[in-house]
Amino acid sequence: MSQDTNKITPDPDFDTDDNAYKLAPKVISAILYAVENQDQALLAELMEPLHAADIADILEQINTFDRRRLVQLYDREFDGEILSELDESLREEVMLALKPHVLAEAVRELESDDVVDLVEDLDEPQQEAILEHLEDADRVAVEQALAYPEESAGRLMQRAVAMAPDHWNVGQCIDYLRKSDDLPEQFYHVIMVDPRMRPVGNVTLGRIMGSRRDVLLKDILEDVFQTIPVTQDEEDVAYAFNQYHLISAPVVDEDDRLVGVITIDDAMAVLDEEHEEDILRLAGVSEGSLTDTVSETARQRFPWLAVNLLTAIVASLVIAQFEVTIEKFVALAVLMPIVASMGGNAGTQSLTVAVRALATKDLTGSNVWRVIRREALVGLLNGLAFAILMGGIGVLWFGSFQLGYVIAVAMVVNLVVAGLAGTMVPVVLDKLGVDPALASGTFVTTVTDVLGFFAFLGLATIVLL
Amino acid sequence: MSQDTNKITPDPDFDTDDNAYKLAPKVISAILYAVENQDQALLAELMEPLHAADIADILEQINTFDRRRLVQLYDREFDGEILSELDESLREEVMLALKPHVLAEAVRELESDDVVDLVEDLDEPQQEAILEHLEDADRVAVEQALAYPEESAGRLMQRAVAMAPDHWNVGQCIDYLRKSDDLPEQFYHVIMVDPRMRPVGNVTLGRIMGSRRDVLLKDILEDVFQTIPVTQDEEDVAYAFNQYHLISAPVVDEDDRLVGVITIDDAMAVLDEEHEEDILRLAGVSEGSLTDTVSETARQRFPWLAVNLLTAIVASLVIAQFEVTIEKFVALAVLMPIVASMGGNAGTQSLTVAVRALATKDLTGSNVWRVIRREALVGLLNGLAFAILMGGIGVLWFGSFQLGYVIAVAMVVNLVVAGLAGTMVPVVLDKLGVDPALASGTFVTTVTDVLGFFAFLGLATIVLL
Repeated sequence: MSQDTNKITPDPDFDTDDNAYKLAPKVISAILYAVENQDQALLAELMEPLHAADIADILEQINTFDRRRLVQLYDREFDGEILSELDESLREEVMLALKPHVLAEAVRELESDDVVDLVEDLDEPQQEAILEHLEDADRVAVEQALAYPEESAGRLMQRAVAMAPDHWNVGQCIDYLRKSDDLPEQFYHVIMVDPRMRPVGNVTLGRIMGSRRDVLLKDILEDVFQTIPVTQDEEDVAYAFNQYHLISAPVVDEDDRLVGVITIDDAMAVLDEEHEEDILRLAGVSEGSLTDTVSETARQRFPWLAVNLLTAIVASLVIAQFEVTIEKFVALAVLMPIVASMGGNAGTQSLTVAVRALATKDLTGSNVWRVIRREALVGLLNGLAFAILMGGIGVLWFGSFQLGYVIAVAMVVNLVVAGLAGTMVPVVLDKLGVDPALASGTFVTTVTDVLGFFAFLGLATIVLL
Repeated sequence: MSQDTNKITPDPDFDTDDNAYKLAPKVISAILYAVENQDQALLAELMEPLHAADIADILEQINTFDRRRLVQLYDREFDGEILSELDESLREEVMLALKPHVLAEAVRELESDDVVDLVEDLDEPQQEAILEHLEDADRVAVEQALAYPEESAGRLMQRAVAMAPDHWNVGQCIDYLRKSDDLPEQFYHVIMVDPRMRPVGNVTLGRIMGSRRDVLLKDILEDVFQTIPVTQDEEDVAYAFNQYHLISAPVVDEDDRLVGVITIDDAMAVLDEEHEEDILRLAGVSEGSLTDTVSETARQRFPWLAVNLLTAIVASLVIAQFEVTIEKFVALAVLMPIVASMGGNAGTQSLTVAVRALATKDLTGSNVWRVIRREALVGLLNGLAFAILMGGIGVLWFGSFQLGYVIAVAMVVNLVVAGLAGTMVPVVLDKLGVDPALASGTFVTTVTDVLGFFAFLGLATIVLL
């Protein structure tokens, strides 16, 4: 019976155990074999059981040449949803590989919010070329959505909404839903609106089905109700869905009137993207995907490495002040990277915790000083632990108590500085409106390097010379 | 009319603009004022409009002393959901601060899957103390869930399910739903089962409401249908929801029989936790939260810093081999940190991209060699760019063409190594079943440090001596 439906697992074509949902290499090999032999029937048969998201993943994992041939061979079977699921960096390439009428048909199948997502990054002429294939109502919907700011709720929402006046009862609502033919594809709530079209509550379909016909909708409203301003940033939309466990939420304009609805699956996709962005930004990778070319990728990563070079030069300038000391005690040059490395890592620990806590709104004016104090004390404790360890190693390695003492003190200073800078830098950047994930790393490492080298080499100059 | 419902925004008590959904400091101040004055009525009034998730956030942001007083003053108003929303590190503390009958009442209000989440990390006696307050049916449900492995679908699912036999029509289904009194609190699909209780399809409530009574359920099934094995890891569950845009999915035992259902809000929470874990692990913070004490936090972070110390010592041993060269050319000591820093950062860029691509199952056997080649070529391109830059700086700074040449070559070697190691290390760790987010950083930095110093100082010894 599962053949009737597009069932995805359990399916022998997919690995199980550790690799649940990972496409088995043999599926991809079989597909590439069909492409190689230009066997359109075999290709269609292999692709038939696959979800659009998995087909998109396959297109992302094969090389450009195979991708182009696959798209052309698959031809009229090509579903609009595959385009939606495809990584943005590949969409243009795949759209260009499709025959115009196949592309037109694929786009026509999509919901208006998916079309928005598809065309928003295209140039004006390409956008036009796609929109002209849509039916008038859909085209207008897409164009209106594009009028809202990028990454706003207005871009994310769907305009088809199931709603009911606030004086209706369950029976009226059910009759309306049964008759209506412009309901959203998927919906989970009926939004109750007042006479001025302002949403005043949500009723779940489950409650409607479980209630008698004469029960008033306003008596079975959900406890938690959340409206989303149409200009709100999509990151905040995702936060609201996650924080308040929303399934769908009405979107309102500046007069609080209903203009659309956002559902949790869209919010989940945004949450996923925002996390991806944060994790990559923390590592100095601001954008990009696995399918970007070598030169694109090199160009994307260059700026952050360049900033890092500058900060590394600053650290070198500090070292240069102590050339005389190093010349006499080469052991200092041997130990220097340890000081820098420990400070950098402790700083990264603190700053990652701080950046995450800022993103989840857990680090606020109410606890910021307590958190800074805690991180400094954590740095002090671990600094003392590593001072003993590394001081001992220094003494044993180089046979000099003074050297051991110098590296021990430097360790404490550097780890306390790492805790302080690791917390304060992201907090200050956030206050200034700069994304702390993007810029904190460089600043914190500069601070720990400069102060770490200064403490280590400065103290060495005083103690050893 | 919005007063009727627990509406969260727009609300003057919350900041708007940038700080949507961030609790305004003045709300927290007012609450602390009420606590300070032991004003129970004022506290209840201030807390009334707040969502349980926001109350949990407030408890997380205030200090231990205030938290204890707040919990005790709030007393009988204390809702079970606040416990569910609370950070795990604080739950035990808050539960101990509650009077036993208040705690009992709070837990009784919760759905069984939330109770599971609440008690799964407690000791046996504490678990018992809470479970004994539950009604028999709920207690059994919780105990059965606890019999499934930790972090499995069985722990995540709710057992109350809306289901219908596969021969029913819409009318029969609606009548059943209207009569049934053990339906889940929230549900979005009716799961169609065969006579052996195996789920064979999902029907959305929207389709049921929009269809005539005589339409067969099997004719209005959803296209996409996904069952989840009860022992599946929750990380894979979250992946499936995100990949296939599921709203709810039936959970099945090893005989494919229906045992429960997972909804997207739970999957979204797991996705959020997994991201959090990945981002913290990449930074060498394996666990912990803002509310942990100083000594707990120091202890959690110590092991990773210790591993880092070991790898830094390995790098130092490399440097120690070239003491003679450094003694003659102190400029090398000055430039060393630049080599290490650039290699470390380029390596982090590559490894973060690889770790993310592994987590999203985008990096597979089909494209791994292409990705490794790409990263090596990106390293080569940027290595050449920084070789020119840094070579020039070396010549200008120290007036030595040979030194400029040495650092230029070291830069190219180090960035290519960073690209290779940054991709290969996580891929190999993943193959070995080790979480690449946890361990890659240390390995990659060790490789870039050791090879970077070796290339730089080794070449210097040959060229300059």
